[in-house]
Order: sequence, then structure tokens, then C-alpha cells
Amino acid sequence: MNRPSGRAPDLLRTVSLEPGVSRHAEGSCLIRMGDTEVLCTASVEGRVPPFLRGQGQGWVTAEYGMLPRATHTRGDREAARGKQSGRTQEIQRLIGRSLRAVTDLKAMGEMTITLDCDVLSADGGTRCASITGAWVALHLAFRHCMKMNVMASMPLRDHVAAVSCGIWQGVPVLDLDYAEDSKAQTDANFVMTGNGGLVEVQGTAEGEPFSEAELLALLKLARHGTAELLRRQRTACGLG
Amino acid sequence: MNRPSGRAPDLLRTVSLEPGVSRHAEGSCLIRMGDTEVLCTASVEGRVPPFLRGQGQGWVTAEYGMLPRATHTRGDREAARGKQSGRTQEIQRLIGRSLRAVTDLKAMGEMTITLDCDVLSADGGTRCASITGAWVALHLAFRHCMKMNVMASMPLRDHVAAVSCGIWQGVPVLDLDYAEDSKAQTDANFVMTGNGGLVEVQGTAEGEPFSEAELLALLKLARHGTAELLRRQRTACGLG
Amino acid sequence: MNRPSGRAPDLLRTVSLEPGVSRHAEGSCLIRMGDTEVLCTASVEGRVPPFLRGQGQGWVTAEYGMLPRATHTRGDREAARGKQSGRTQEIQRLIGRSLRAVTDLKAMGEMTITLDCDVLSADGGTRCASITGAWVALHLAFRHCMKMNVMASMPLRDHVAAVSCGIWQGVPVLDLDYAEDSKAQTDANFVMTGNGGLVEVQGTAEGEPFSEAELLALLKLARHGTAELLRRQRTACGLG
Amino acid sequence: MNRPSGRAPDLLRTVSLEPGVSRHAEGSCLIRMGDTEVLCTASVEGRVPPFLRGQGQGWVTAEYGMLPRATHTRGDREAARGKQSGRTQEIQRLIGRSLRAVTDLKAMGEMTITLDCDVLSADGGTRCASITGAWVALHLAFRHCMKMNVMASMPLRDHVAAVSCGIWQGVPVLDLDYAEDSKAQTDANFVMTGNGGLVEVQGTAEGEPFSEAELLALLKLARHGTAELLRRQRTACGLG
Amino acid sequence: MNRPSGRAPDLLRTVSLEPGVSRHAEGSCLIRMGDTEVLCTASVEGRVPPFLRGQGQGWVTAEYGMLPRATHTRGDREAARGKQSGRTQEIQRLIGRSLRAVTDLKAMGEMTITLDCDVLSADGGTRCASITGAWVALHLAFRHCMKMNVMASMPLRDHVAAVSCGIWQGVPVLDLDYAEDSKAQTDANFVMTGNGGLVEVQGTAEGEPFSEAELLALLKLARHGTAELLRRQRTACGLG
Amino acid sequence: MNRPSGRAPDLLRTVSLEPGVSRHAEGSCLIRMGDTEVLCTASVEGRVPPFLRGQGQGWVTAEYGMLPRATHTRGDREAARGKQSGRTQEIQRLIGRSLRAVTDLKAMGEMTITLDCDVLSADGGTRCASITGAWVALHLAFRHCMKMNVMASMPLRDHVAAVSCGIWQGVPVLDLDYAEDSKAQTDANFVMTGNGGLVEVQGTAEGEPFSEAELLALLKLARHGTAELLRRQRTACGLG
Repeated sequence: MNRPSGRAPDLLRTVSLEPGVSRHAEGSCLIRMGDTEVLCTASVEGRVPPFLRGQGQGWVTAEYGMLPRATHTRGDREAARGKQSGRTQEIQRLIGRSLRAVTDLKAMGEMTITLDCDVLSADGGTRCASITGAWVALHLAFRHCMKMNVMASMPLRDHVAAVSCGIWQGVPVLDLDYAEDSKAQTDANFVMTGNGGLVEVQGTAEGEPFSEAELLALLKLARHGTAELLRRQRTACGLG
Repeated sequence: MNRPSGRAPDLLRTVSLEPGVSRHAEGSCLIRMGDTEVLCTASVEGRVPPFLRGQGQGWVTAEYGMLPRATHTRGDREAARGKQSGRTQEIQRLIGRSLRAVTDLKAMGEMTITLDCDVLSADGGTRCASITGAWVALHLAFRHCMKMNVMASMPLRDHVAAVSCGIWQGVPVLDLDYAEDSKAQTDANFVMTGNGGLVEVQGTAEGEPFSEAELLALLKLARHGTAELLRRQRTACGLG
Repeated sequence: MNRPSGRAPDLLRTVSLEPGVSRHAEGSCLIRMGDTEVLCTASVEGRVPPFLRGQGQGWVTAEYGMLPRATHTRGDREAARGKQSGRTQEIQRLIGRSLRAVTDLKAMGEMTITLDCDVLSADGGTRCASITGAWVALHLAFRHCMKMNVMASMPLRDHVAAVSCGIWQGVPVLDLDYAEDSKAQTDANFVMTGNGGLVEVQGTAEGEPFSEAELLALLKLARHGTAELLRRQRTACGLG
Repeated sequence: MNRPSGRAPDLLRTVSLEPGVSRHAEGSCLIRMGDTEVLCTASVEGRVPPFLRGQGQGWVTAEYGMLPRATHTRGDREAARGKQSGRTQEIQRLIGRSLRAVTDLKAMGEMTITLDCDVLSADGGTRCASITGAWVALHLAFRHCMKMNVMASMPLRDHVAAVSCGIWQGVPVLDLDYAEDSKAQTDANFVMTGNGGLVEVQGTAEGEPFSEAELLALLKLARHGTAELLRRQRTACGLG
Repeated sequence: MNRPSGRAPDLLRTVSLEPGVSRHAEGSCLIRMGDTEVLCTASVEGRVPPFLRGQGQGWVTAEYGMLPRATHTRGDREAARGKQSGRTQEIQRLIGRSLRAVTDLKAMGEMTITLDCDVLSADGGTRCASITGAWVALHLAFRHCMKMNVMASMPLRDHVAAVSCGIWQGVPVLDLDYAEDSKAQTDANFVMTGNGGLVEVQGTAEGEPFSEAELLALLKLARHGTAELLRRQRTACGLG
Repeated sequence: MNRPSGRAPDLLRTVSLEPGVSRHAEGSCLIRMGDTEVLCTASVEGRVPPFLRGQGQGWVTAEYGMLPRATHTRGDREAARGKQSGRTQEIQRLIGRSLRAVTDLKAMGEMTITLDCDVLSADGGTRCASITGAWVALHLAFRHCMKMNVMASMPLRDHVAAVSCGIWQGVPVLDLDYAEDSKAQTDANFVMTGNGGLVEVQGTAEGEPFSEAELLALLKLARHGTAELLRRQRTACGLG
């Protein structure tokens, strides 16, 4: 079997996480996974959305966007069309949910952190890269808050990282790029913590339904891939 | 363990599928799962969306809505707010994807079938009920097309049905109602075919991450539940 | 003369009003007039819109919607299009106005009741059916408020019900269904109280202008029809 | 009885219809009824909306707007708010329907005339003034088309004009201004043809329901008022 | 050289400023420059936008609109399209900025004045006419506030007026009408104060780039034209 | 005088233009002027907007956006708000106009090039940086088209670059950063060609009006600054 990218089935693309790239944001990270490139910024605001007011807890939320020419053919600018697509909304809900899963919202106090994940270049796996990069931005923003003495301790309880896997010509493979993703029979995103716990599993049959055994094979690859991503997060944050 | 509904962990709610309820639609089904009630209609149109024109294949798509007072407290009417929520869009994308997974789009010819899933009463599991009920509406609409001689054979290759499962106080349980869903630690939706294949798996940790073993326990329950739903679909369609 | 429905000129369609159909709403009624079917729910909220704050009075308002496949050919979902049509807005303004005409807003206190009228099946006369059914939902919601001790007395001063009439091949006929409505020369909606007073009259010439005599003939039919509808409302509400 | 305006019950306000006020429009009329002032323009376009294409008939439609400071306190600009209110849509639908009622759409050929009715100053009765003024603009636009040889004969079969009447302290009065309208018990708009036929009747009880006798009294006043308006239309169009 | 209008290069069109034309607005002016006609109203409101609250200063802002048939061919109604064009927004930002440049916002107290500039007829130069006319409306509104004792002194520090100039067949000309504007090589708008100071300069090359010398020639013409407009403003306001 | 940035009055910020940064776009350039950073991409499409069809000419247009955290405090995402601000629309109109001024649209054939200018980091002068960077992206896209043989010759007739100048504490200074811009008395943007011609001049008095002499002093600085920017464009494009 030769997957289009020529990588071994269990090999991630070249990954880099560059922390602190934003002049203004309290935390930021530019993540590259192969030709996918996402700028993640974390913005701190000293209040919470209306539905949480007065409850002594914080909030973490995310917004996702793609520059019109991040893709092979230019897409419409969502601001010009006047609304975000269903896909955009689905992705930003996933990112927010994934990060809240490892955050102690009580420990934040009444503050909101908004993660903006903007895709500068897209080559598959942008939602997973957004989660992995946003964790770094969030970590750095919390560190900033601690340094500014607006938070007493780090509200992040664990890492969270994500990777997509798929079945390509019958073989489970890790970290699909766009060419692979568009031809995979099954495609699954896994969001996992540093302890190996599952935060989100999203598997979709593109053609034939998939079996329990296939789901487990993909999960095993994902576990392998996120372990590497978690190491990169630690390095990017100087966590030794 | 006593789950709020008092049901055994592997027991579905009372299910009913009433076919042919719509005066106008080519196919329809009113599905009730406990107090959740969804009206599913299938509308046939003799053309395909622009991105498919001239390719000799059909399209199946879905729209989802909830009446403002389907829920405990009245929600905003999406038509009045001027846009569909991210949740609505995510659900209708899931319904469409699930039905297309068991449809032979080539066999349809250049026709579109739109499934409208409108929640008249909500008590948890509305997206799963929508998929299960929409399959019946779609089957009936295809039968109508065959009877009208606009399709030569049945384009549905298999059944598809969905059920949610969750971990409630440490115990995996089947078919969450709203009270259970809002307190479950983990919540997963499974979309499965008549052959037991997986079409979609969506698992989300609401609190603590979940383990592979827990995912498999939920999958086992889902397999049990969908088997029953598939029997109900056959009965509703008079498939013996 | 044989009108398309075969009914005598002064005969209503088969009418039924089913109260209390909604699991969640404080008041509800499913009204059927022939093949027209409207689900009416009344939702109580303990505050008034900004323009009424601090004036010690309540508010009654309505929203109207039609399921996409309530009609012969599927219509666009207004939530997906991003706005309500002019027709929808005109109808919901009429429903709200009609109900306020028989409500003692002062006696309500600073509360709002929203009537949602959602057409499950359309065969002409949906706006009139909405008014007639919404009155029952409103009455039941007020009773609920009295039982909860948030209102001291019933704020409804009278019944209100509505019916459409038209001139079909020169003959005034009562309660047009869709087939009749689309061919009527003149079409008029009458909203009347239990005392026989007029709340709204909306007459429209579809072809030739109509005369004063014709307007009066239609009014006479409407008086006859609404008298029957008022009896059904009393029965539905158990008012003897 | 002294109505606020001091006018006799059956007296119109000072009326003027100034034809040809627009530099660009094919037909136009500035109508003043007391302090209500509406600029009506008719724009001719050589095609019809999609739903009429290829049927060999024309279309007449209307749009209505109000300058933000036409009213006592400044209203929001609808273009800035991003949508037209329900009231605006209801009015423009009424204007279009009224004019189509006296137009032979077949005789127009495949052309569309759009009537823009923009309220420069509002003091009650803007929808009625719009109809009366728009008829003049439409007549002049049709004359322009005949002169340009794009229409063989005048497609207008009759005049149409409108006036509001109301019951003020128990007395039926003609042509309500804003001060009268806001205190009237009942308020009715009548759209009538040159032959005295009724095109639209819209009666609304603002407080107590009204009776058949009251409706007839208002209709009698309207007949008197529109007769005068029709004379003014003839003069404005030089019809002798 | 014969410019299309036949005017001498340094000649304004026929100008008139009619103050006090609005029945309701606190200040108003109908300005005509040739066939361009703009109704300017100033509306006073006793509060400021959120970003200025509690700062003890006022705000002056503008909105701009064009009636659909103000132009040669009918344009879409922005309220119907659901948004204001980029051009509209650019113009209303310019009008607001120009008026604020000569207003002592501190002296206003916490009040907002909104200038509505609605183009009844367009023949070029509508943004400049709007500024010139809006100044008169604003002056009159401030006088009204002083008379009502809500302002102690006149917050306007100077006049402001605007005119467009352009290069037509190589010759700098003043006050372009539509025919001239659409063929000019360069087009520039100048907003100037009574003291001859510049508030805004906006020069645009339509074809070939323009030179510094050409810019200065246009500025000279503008100085000449605005001097005349300032005299008309004084007359319209009765400033002797 | 010491301007906040410490630069000499006629000194640009550190400028860099990095060509070819986008994996997908036919032309691209990342421009940095100090801490302002704009990603410019040029996308080629083989058709023109409806208003140009069949005229044998091309079109160049621009869209502008700012990442939410490009600024000191996070701004709303325009896609989420559902519309582009007036500022955004004004800027993208300016960019498009500036580039069209040096493009031979006839020489393009019926093709459209869309320049997307997305601000990754904002520190003043983003619209000017966008124009300067977009020229490089456009040049590279045209070269791509020539290489692909879809254009016979280079449609760009000249360079275009832009810079802002302002009067800071009475002294004219070049290339304002955000801190300087927010305190400048007058602020002007100049768009100039390689031949020194003016394409756009936009001067605005922030406080006191400015004089002709001041306008000329700013223009002189701009001429100096754009000369340097043009050299950088040539280097970035390898034009020797």
C-alpha cells in the first residue's frame, strides 16, 4: 500500500507549533501540520456571557475561520456572504467543547477566553490542528493571567490534542491530508487528553459503513499520533 | 442503579412510527420515542442542486427544525431570528449524511429528495429520532417514485437508524431522555445500518474523558437498540 | 351550484379542537378544519417587551409558521432563507391583534403570552384556524396562571374566532378550502367575538370589485360559521 | 362632536396631487393629504418576475418606505436595520394588490411596473394616500409606454383610490389624521374603484368590537371621500 | 472647451437651500444643486451611543439614502435587499465626520444629533450636497436646542460645505453633474470650513493618474465654489 | 520633535515584502510594515461579473478582512456578526480602485482577479500596506497567467503603492503607526504610481482643519515614501 502522501500508515505529517506569534493576543500559536497552517490566538476578557453571569465561573469558547484563498480554489468570504456556513459552526463548537473538557471553569473566575482559529492554508485536518494549536494558545493565555495575578492557579487540568485518521484502500492511516481525506472510505476525528482519555470521537463512513474493528484500529493510530502532538505542545510551552 | 426514567439500562423508550401522516408529502412518518415527537416528510423534486447537474445522479438532503414550544421553555423561532443556530445546522448535516450513506444516488436519477424533520415535542434524542423516522419517509417516497415510474428500482440499499447512549452514574444506558442526557457524563450517538455497520459515531465527554472500554459498552447498547428500531421501520413500511 | 368541496354554501368543514396537546406549553390546542391543521401553543413569560415596561400591563403576541411540506409543493424553510415572508408577518400581526382585542391587558399584570401557530397541514384558511385555535390555547394558559396564583382573574373578556368566506361562481360560500379559495372572485376573513361584534374584516377582490351587498352576504355567512366555532371553543375548554 | 382636526365628519383634509415631479421616473405623483406627503414613482422595466415568464402578461408591484424623520420621533432606517418591518411589507402588498385589481395585466405585455411610495411626511393615512397617488403615477407611466409605442392601449380599466375612516367618540369620521387615528375606536381602510366597487376593505377594532351598522356608516363616508379623490386623479392626469 | 452642462468651468449649478421643510424634525433643509435634490433632517435625542456614555460629550452622526427612482434607472431599495451598499456606508461616514469636524461635541452635552440625508433626485454630487444641506439642518437643530434651553451656546464652531470638482477633457471644472462626472478623468470632493480650512480631500483618478498641479487647480475651484455655498448657508439660516 | 516611534519624520517603518507565501494562490505577498502584517493573495477566475459580460474586458477587485485578534483588543468576527462594517467596505473599494487604475482591463480578457488582503497583525496603515502588497500579488498572478498562456502580455501598466502621512504635533511625518495615527491632527493616505502620478488622495482633519500648505507637505513625504516602496515591489518581483 502506498498512500498518496507516501508516508507510512502511522506517520504524522511534519508538525510545528510556534508559540507567541501574535503581537497582541494574551496567548497564541501558529500550528503547521504539513501544508495545513492555522493561526490560533487566545483573547482574555474580564466577563462572561449572559447565561453564566454571577455564577463565579469562567468560559472558554472558539471561533473558526478560513481565509478565502486558504484552499485550492478561492471560497467565498463568510463576512461578505453574511453568514457562517454550517461546517464553520460545527467546527467552532467542536473546538470550544474540546478545550472546555480539560479546563476547570470554576478556577478561571468570571472571565472568558476566546480562541480564534484562522486557517491560513488548508490541506486537510484543519479542525484537528485548530484544537491542538488552540490548547497551546490557551495555556499561554492562562499563564499570562497568572502572571498578571488575575488567576491564582492554572485552570487547565490536562492537555488536549486531536488528529484525524481514515481508512484508505482498506488500510487504516494516520493524519490524512486533503488528497487522502477526499478518497478515504471512512474518516474519523479523535480528540484525546494527555492521560489518553477520549474527549470526542467523530467517525463517518464516506462510502461503505465501517466495523467496530475498524473503529478500534483508527483509535489505536490516533492514540499514537496524539502522543506525539502532546509532546510538541509541552515543548512549545516550555514544559520540559 | 436507577436511571431517572426508571428503565432498565438496555431498554428503549416506547417507540412508535406512524407512516403516511402527511396529506401532501410523497413520504412521511411521525416518530415518537417517549415524549420526543418528530414529523418527518420526504419531498421529491425533479432536479438536483447546481453542483451535481448533468452528472446523472440524485441527491438526498435534510432540514431540521424545532417548534418554538417543543421544549420546556419557549425558544426563539429561528425564522424570526433570521438564522439557523449552529446546533440546527450540525443536526441537519448529520441527518442528510446518514441517509445518503445507504442510498444509491446513481439509481435515483437527477432527482432530489428533501427530508424535513420538525420536532413537535422534545425530550432528548431528537436527532436520532429524526434519522430513524426520516428513513421511513424516504423509503415511502422512493416507493412513490417507483409507482409513478420515475425510478426503476429502490435506491435504498439498507436501513439506517440511530440511537443515543450515555454513561449515567457510571453505568452505560440506552436511549437517553432529556433528564438523563443533561446529567450523563458521556453521551454518544450511533447511526447504524441494517447489517450492523457503522455510519456515524459521535461520542462526547460531558465531564470526565471516557475510555475505549466505555465507548465499546455504549456501542454494544446501541447495536441492541437499533436492532429494535430497524424492526419497527420494517413494520411501518409493511416490509414483513 | 356545486362548490368544489361539495358542501352546502353555509357549511363549515369538519372541525375539531383538541386541547392540551403540548407536553410543555402552558396552554395548547390542535385545531383541524378539514385538511388544515394548526398546532397552537401559548407560552407564558414573566415580563413584557421593552415598550411596555413599568406600565403595569401585560402583552399578548403571536408568531406564525408553516412547516415546509404543509403545502402541496414544498416551500422554503423561512429559517433557512433567513427571513419571514411578508405574508407570514401579516398573518402573525393579525393573530396577535385579534387576541388582544378580547384580552384585558391590565388584568394580566406584567406578563407576556406568546401564541405560536404552526401549520402542520395547509388546505386554506390557516390564518382563521390559527385565531380560533389560539384562543383556546390562550384561555388554557390564563387558567394555568390563575391556578398558579399569578393572575387573580381571567383576563379574557370574550371569545374570538375567525372564518373565511368567499364568492364562488357568484355564490357566497362559507369556509373556503384551498381549491375554492384559489378560484374565488372575492375572499374575506372575518374575526368575530362571542357577542357577535366585529374585530377584523378583511375583504379582497381577487378579480372584479365586490359590492356592498356581497360584503353583507359574506358577513352573514361568517356570523353563522363563527357561532359554531365559538361553541367548539367552549366545549374544548370545558366551559359547558 | 368636535374631532381633533376640527373638520366636519365627512370632510377630507386638503388634498393635492402633483403629477410629473420626478426627473427620471416614467410616471410620478406627489400626493399631499393634510400633512401626509408621499412621493409616488412608477418605473417601467421590460421583463417580468420569474414566476410569470413566458405567459405573455405583465406585472404591477409596489414598494413602500418611510423616511426616518417622516414621523414625530425618528424611526430606524430599515436599510440600516437590515430588514423591512412587518408593517412595511403589509402595506406594500396592499398597494400592489389594489393597483393590480384595476389593471389588465394581459394588455401590458411582458413588462413590470414598480410603484415606489416613499413617505416624506407622515400624519396618518399614508397607505391610503400611497394608493391614490400611485394610481396617478401608474396612469402616467402607461401613457408614457403608449407614447413610446411599447403598449397599444391603456391597460388601466378603472380608477382606484383609498381613504381611511374611523369611529371617533362614537361618531364615524372621514380621513383620519394621526391624532385622530391614534384615538379612534375603530379604524377602516377602503380601497374603491371609479365605479364604486370595493377592492379592499380592512376594518380593525382598536378597542371595542364594531357592529355591522358601524361598518356600513364608515363605508358610506369612504364612498363620499373616494369620489372626491377620483376627481382629483382625473384632474392630475388631465382627463377632463 | 464646452463642458456638457454648458457652464463656465468655475460656475456652480443653480443652488437653493430651503430651511425648515420638515414638519417634525428639529432642523431641516432641502438642498437643490441643479437636478440633485437632497432632503436633510436633523433629529435630536437626549442620549449618546454606548461608547460615549458618561463622558459628558455629545455625538453627531449621519445616515444617507437614495430613493429607488432618484436615479435614471431604478435601483434596488436597500431596505428590501437587507443591507446598505459599501457606497452608502462610505458616504454616511464622510457626512458624519465632516460635521463633527466643526462641532464642539463637549458643548452639546450628552445628546446625539442624527442627520438623515435622503436623495430625492440624483444628478451628481449627492454626497457634497448632503454635507452642505446637513450643516443647515444641524445649525437649525442646535438653535432649537438653545431655544428649548437644553444647550447654553451654539456648539457649531464654523460652517462646513462641500463641492466636487473634476478634470474634464483636460480642463478643471467646478461642481460636476452626472453627465460630466461619468466622463471626468479625475474627480475630487473637497469639504471646507468657513475659514477656508480643509476638512476632507478625496481625489480619485478615473483614468490617468493626476498631478500635484491638477490637484491644486481643483482645490482652487473648490475654494471658489464653497465660498458661494457658505453664503447660501448663512442666508438660509438668516445669519445676515 | 520626537514622534512616538522615535523615527525621523521622513522615515518609513521596517518594510518587507515576501512573495509567493501562499500554497494555492496564483499570486501572493506577505507585507510587513513595522508591526502591521497583511497577507495578500490574488485569485484568478476565468469569467467576469455580470455587469461586464460579453465586453471583452477583465476585472480586478479586492476584499479586505482583519483577523479578530489582529488588534489590541479583540474585535468581532465580521462573519459572525453577519455583515462587513462600513470601514471594511470603504477599504476594499479603495484597494480595488487603486489596482484597477494601473491595470489594462482590456488586455486581461474576460477574467477576474480577486485580491484578498487579510490583516494578520494591525499597527496602523493597514489599507496602505494592503495596496502595496496586493500589487505584488497581482503582478505575480498576471505572470502566472502569461506562463499558462491565458494572457499574451502583462496587463499592469505601472506600479501602485500607498502610504499614510500625518501631522503630529505640528510636524508632517511619514508612515504613521497606530500610536501616532490615533494622535495625529491630520491624516492622509496617498496612492501613487511608479511615475509619480496620484491615483487617490484622502486627507482628513481629525481635529483642526488643515491648510493647502500642510497638504503639500504631506504629499512630499508620501512621494518620498512610495518611491522606496516601489523599489521593494520591484525586488520582491525580481524586476531588477
